[in-house]
Amino acid sequence: MKNKETTSFIHKEKAPKEFSFGIIIVSDSRFQQVLKRKEIIDESGRVLEEALKKDGHKKVFEFILPDDKEIIMAFVKFIAKKENLDTLIFIGGTGISNRDVTIEALEEVSEKKMKGFGEIFRFLSYKEIGSSAILSRAEAYIYHGKIIYCLPGSPNAVKVALPLILKETGHVLRHLKE
Amino acid sequence: MKNKETTSFIHKEKAPKEFSFGIIIVSDSRFQQVLKRKEIIDESGRVLEEALKKDGHKKVFEFILPDDKEIIMAFVKFIAKKENLDTLIFIGGTGISNRDVTIEALEEVSEKKMKGFGEIFRFLSYKEIGSSAILSRAEAYIYHGKIIYCLPGSPNAVKVALPLILKETGHVLRHLKE
Amino acid sequence: MKNKETTSFIHKEKAPKEFSFGIIIVSDSRFQQVLKRKEIIDESGRVLEEALKKDGHKKVFEFILPDDKEIIMAFVKFIAKKENLDTLIFIGGTGISNRDVTIEALEEVSEKKMKGFGEIFRFLSYKEIGSSAILSRAEAYIYHGKIIYCLPGSPNAVKVALPLILKETGHVLRHLKE
Amino acid sequence: MKNKETTSFIHKEKAPKEFSFGIIIVSDSRFQQVLKRKEIIDESGRVLEEALKKDGHKKVFEFILPDDKEIIMAFVKFIAKKENLDTLIFIGGTGISNRDVTIEALEEVSEKKMKGFGEIFRFLSYKEIGSSAILSRAEAYIYHGKIIYCLPGSPNAVKVALPLILKETGHVLRHLKE
Amino acid sequence: MKNKETTSFIHKEKAPKEFSFGIIIVSDSRFQQVLKRKEIIDESGRVLEEALKKDGHKKVFEFILPDDKEIIMAFVKFIAKKENLDTLIFIGGTGISNRDVTIEALEEVSEKKMKGFGEIFRFLSYKEIGSSAILSRAEAYIYHGKIIYCLPGSPNAVKVALPLILKETGHVLRHLKE
Amino acid sequence: MKNKETTSFIHKEKAPKEFSFGIIIVSDSRFQQVLKRKEIIDESGRVLEEALKKDGHKKVFEFILPDDKEIIMAFVKFIAKKENLDTLIFIGGTGISNRDVTIEALEEVSEKKMKGFGEIFRFLSYKEIGSSAILSRAEAYIYHGKIIYCLPGSPNAVKVALPLILKETGHVLRHLKE
Repeated sequence: MKNKETTSFIHKEKAPKEFSFGIIIVSDSRFQQVLKRKEIIDESGRVLEEALKKDGHKKVFEFILPDDKEIIMAFVKFIAKKENLDTLIFIGGTGISNRDVTIEALEEVSEKKMKGFGEIFRFLSYKEIGSSAILSRAEAYIYHGKIIYCLPGSPNAVKVALPLILKETGHVLRHLKE
Repeated sequence: MKNKETTSFIHKEKAPKEFSFGIIIVSDSRFQQVLKRKEIIDESGRVLEEALKKDGHKKVFEFILPDDKEIIMAFVKFIAKKENLDTLIFIGGTGISNRDVTIEALEEVSEKKMKGFGEIFRFLSYKEIGSSAILSRAEAYIYHGKIIYCLPGSPNAVKVALPLILKETGHVLRHLKE
Repeated sequence: MKNKETTSFIHKEKAPKEFSFGIIIVSDSRFQQVLKRKEIIDESGRVLEEALKKDGHKKVFEFILPDDKEIIMAFVKFIAKKENLDTLIFIGGTGISNRDVTIEALEEVSEKKMKGFGEIFRFLSYKEIGSSAILSRAEAYIYHGKIIYCLPGSPNAVKVALPLILKETGHVLRHLKE
Repeated sequence: MKNKETTSFIHKEKAPKEFSFGIIIVSDSRFQQVLKRKEIIDESGRVLEEALKKDGHKKVFEFILPDDKEIIMAFVKFIAKKENLDTLIFIGGTGISNRDVTIEALEEVSEKKMKGFGEIFRFLSYKEIGSSAILSRAEAYIYHGKIIYCLPGSPNAVKVALPLILKETGHVLRHLKE
Repeated sequence: MKNKETTSFIHKEKAPKEFSFGIIIVSDSRFQQVLKRKEIIDESGRVLEEALKKDGHKKVFEFILPDDKEIIMAFVKFIAKKENLDTLIFIGGTGISNRDVTIEALEEVSEKKMKGFGEIFRFLSYKEIGSSAILSRAEAYIYHGKIIYCLPGSPNAVKVALPLILKETGHVLRHLKE
Repeated sequence: MKNKETTSFIHKEKAPKEFSFGIIIVSDSRFQQVLKRKEIIDESGRVLEEALKKDGHKKVFEFILPDDKEIIMAFVKFIAKKENLDTLIFIGGTGISNRDVTIEALEEVSEKKMKGFGEIFRFLSYKEIGSSAILSRAEAYIYHGKIIYCLPGSPNAVKVALPLILKETGHVLRHLKE
């Protein structure tokens, strides 16, 4: 890789250093536990939260939603209007079974897709785990000036996505604020 | 590449070992021969069939359709309802000319797209043949619990796709049956 | 990489050697200057034009449009009917802010997308500039037998795309003329 | 009946003597056999083919389709565009059960109905078999300059329809070519 | 007429001998009397009921509805779901004035039309009463596995329809139960 | 045929004895002559006019229209609002070629169809000319309290239709005025 300073298409000096984020775990089984008022510890969420906090970013909330397209869409619209938030990170519900609807909900509600995020995530997954990567449906969207990342619900997948999120979120936010 | 056993996002132990498949050759010229009741041997179909059978998988049918979007869509819907079948593999009609409509038909009829399949197929093609890979439009879709692969109608393209199909079909089917 | 001659899916002998192209710069600020009859020199356009002309290709026109979806769509339809042109190259308006609508306009007006162009462009960008590549939204479309490339408005992005355009345009045009 | 020469509304001298025809058998069970590559002999098809060939007409193709409305519609549109054919004769799928969709498919896809064909077929059936004739749903349609007959899938029904088809097809084709 | 046993397109041995029926009188004036809790004797209904009961069939209900398209449609949908019934017989509202909407309601709600019933009814009416038969709009429809007959509101019209209903209802029901 | 007085479904005493009618000839070639201000004598129109006048009915107008669906529909709507007229009789444009659109125009614009008129016309044609009758598309419609007859453009077809029109028009009008 060449010297990034001279070849980058987009200058990064003005990007905000720290950003605020919300985590939304999408899981029917965990949502059932929420309804029963049980304590939940989501490993993928912990991996994500620790890495982002360590880098100076601020968690605004964490929430659990069921695998329900209408609820996910409604929640995204609600968050976009009410919260002072830079980025939303969905974890889970990105698979290919009929139950998985996180991607479908965001395709419908979002304004733009950052195609490169999903493609490069899958390229990195392919280098890591081989052909299983064809199954992965991570994506990133833009909605009301916010970035919405959707990650598969496994700690390993979160680890593959983290360098992309840590390096580029501030950069993307700067573009959205232009 | 690291040890797949420890890094894979998704565990594969429970995946069905063998699957059933149907082959659909999409070709106007070959369909004309069918109407004239002539015998047809499709080289790409043979490459695919031999490799899958050698791995223990079972061919349920093979059929030839013309390059006609509505016929392809109607046939996919029909097969999805009537056949006890795990995966459909389309060969041909994936190019960029107006005549090529296999991808267009499946975009409209399918429920989900496995974006990683097309992306990694093109990445492998790029490594194999260079920039010509920008033309390739292989894709994989999900419809009624079945996987639908669309491959270009050349034996070389089938060979590029085969490792992905052989390694991941059982894995994907397990996810669809969850 | 193997010998391209023997492994390419698609034979290239019959591809036209030279092609004609039009350049459309998409930029609100530059279009304001056009309205004020000021002289404009677009660096990305110059990089593109020089490289294509050096390879024997012929520039038919260059034009500046504002970041307006309706105007871009109308212009594409107009050019497709009226000009004897092989390929249109848009530069600019491919970003993720609400103002950027070049991709959105072409998604709506075009007949087919050459997905491989965007994917391989982003793969090459990733190798060049790292994770910033997730932001890039370069794409290539087919409309009325013409290729429409959309490139980000930076000279470096044009340089990443140039080898793909130089090598494959003739090849794609041959397929479109089949 | 009076002397036809003097009373006919429409003069027949210029009608083409011979016509080309395609036969489409509509039957789920027979289509299953096709997918298994079994040989199929359809008695109604044979009665029709022999009578038409004996009269000098030319069979262009014979094909078997399942009882599927979308497949029938797609096939009719495809044939209308691609084949040099005067008339299509569907046999089967004209009953009143939910499975029977040949008439429904052609009502939706065709441009005109020759109401007299169905009515006179049912009048002749009534004279032949009595009130059971209320169940018969034979019809004739016009689509892209072709006649499309739909006959019930029984050799006796084909025999009732044959005199109408033999006497009037050339006559109708002449009108369509005016 | 030939021997029906040997020429019938459809064998009748397995048809159910007896069927259940409901009668719906459609008449604004009679419905007004129902609202006033007056006793109503509908002559056409009596002719129909006696003939069917004499033949062993079972009346499940009789009801009076106003000449209202929405009410007729809603009632048909309700009956189709809730009642264990083989056939519904509408009497009245089949004329050509704007007030007459029974046929219009059933065209919209039903799944299939048995065109032969109306045609042969009118042919028999023509033989009985001459050219007045052009006014008659009797029809028969299929909806949710039930036969729906619509007869004009005159005892003579019911008498013309009765032989068709008595001979063919069991036969049609057998086809619907296939 | 029994005594009509005792068996008719509908009593005729109150029907108006005389009615007013308009004749519309539909013919591209004759309309071209109209545009050239040439004198036109339409034989079918004369047969119809003489028979109706002899029976005491009153011709209000006669007009020639081209075979144009939009023009026919617009004209019917115009006449229905503006003229004090009982019945409109279209002659011509009822065939099966693409040029023939009289039936198509009236199917779209009319409120009800008197199916019996077309069916009995075709039954009488069949008795007169045999199987050619399958081609005939005479029909009768109701629109804004008026009867609209559509007859094929041949004097013989008009002669077949005349007894039905002479006997039943007054009868139908009475029903429409109820």
